[in-house]
Amino acid sequence: LNGYSDTREALLRAGVAALTEKGFGATGIEEILREASVPKGSFYHYFGSKEAFGAELIERYAAFFASKLNRFLRNPSRKPLQRIKDFVEDADSGMARYDYRRGCLVGNLGQEMSALPESYRQQLCDVFADWQYRIAECLRLAQVDGTLSASADPDHLAEFFWIGWEGAVLRAKLARSGSPLYIFAGGFFRLLET
Amino acid sequence: LNGYSDTREALLRAGVAALTEKGFGATGIEEILREASVPKGSFYHYFGSKEAFGAELIERYAAFFASKLNRFLRNPSRKPLQRIKDFVEDADSGMARYDYRRGCLVGNLGQEMSALPESYRQQLCDVFADWQYRIAECLRLAQVDGTLSASADPDHLAEFFWIGWEGAVLRAKLARSGSPLYIFAGGFFRLLET
Repeated sequence: LNGYSDTREALLRAGVAALTEKGFGATGIEEILREASVPKGSFYHYFGSKEAFGAELIERYAAFFASKLNRFLRNPSRKPLQRIKDFVEDADSGMARYDYRRGCLVGNLGQEMSALPESYRQQLCDVFADWQYRIAECLRLAQVDGTLSASADPDHLAEFFWIGWEGAVLRAKLARSGSPLYIFAGGFFRLLET
Repeated sequence: LNGYSDTREALLRAGVAALTEKGFGATGIEEILREASVPKGSFYHYFGSKEAFGAELIERYAAFFASKLNRFLRNPSRKPLQRIKDFVEDADSGMARYDYRRGCLVGNLGQEMSALPESYRQQLCDVFADWQYRIAECLRLAQVDGTLSASADPDHLAEFFWIGWEGAVLRAKLARSGSPLYIFAGGFFRLLET
């Protein structure tokens, strides 16, 4: 085992879990170290600063989430709009698995942005732009197969989706239920029919 | 001047501002005391605990917001759906006034719920239920005046509104722009036409 990279990995995992659950402000470096069983004081051996650590956590979560979105939104065995529904159901299962305590790292940090290093703002906006692009791509496929009207605006609808979706994740955490996810998604899909 | 209640009031004001901007986890009691020019250590003279203080801040914000909603949603000089649009525009002006740094106290705390006193959960859910009731009431008036279809479900639509709206406020803070508020509201109003 490579001790250095294993420890670094354990810190990143603990960091993603904490930021997904509580956000940046409520997470202390000490609890990350404790969670990863890394001795106090060795954090700066692995990361230059809490700011650099957070930036890497955003990047890591974005990569994890992009591969999740690929899995659903590019699934050739499902029709395009069904792929988005599959994503919604998976999001509910994923949240249920942690008793709706964990939400979206990017949403949490967006919410806290006023208290975060200013450098995170563009990074978080870029992640949303990437997710928006992926949903828009799927909606364009739905236009090709005729399940979405040719007059619909995929980019605008995809932007709407992520704006509301983060609210739905927030409310699912609060209500400890997937119901807000389905209520939001239901409205979104009705909008696609207009 | 009544020193006790003036100081208490100053602490509540500083608390609402901090929780609207950064949330509970990132806010320290010391900065609230500093902001309100109250000597360190006297906090427990005014509030039993940080938990009790937070509960009072939620209550206070809810009362402030309910009176704002009344002002817009019960405005007899506007048609019911226009009242909701007026609320959206006022929300944008309100956020712009603080350079989109401050969002919604209830949304911030909902986001952080996993790290908050469990007693806040019901309190926050009740606030959303109250807001939902007020929007539903306005949508029912729109059904009476014929601008909303009689077959629409005002309660469901109002629930959808607040689920997505909190996402829009979050994104407005991140983007430092009112654009997400209008994109979400635009989709909501299109949904009302279906």
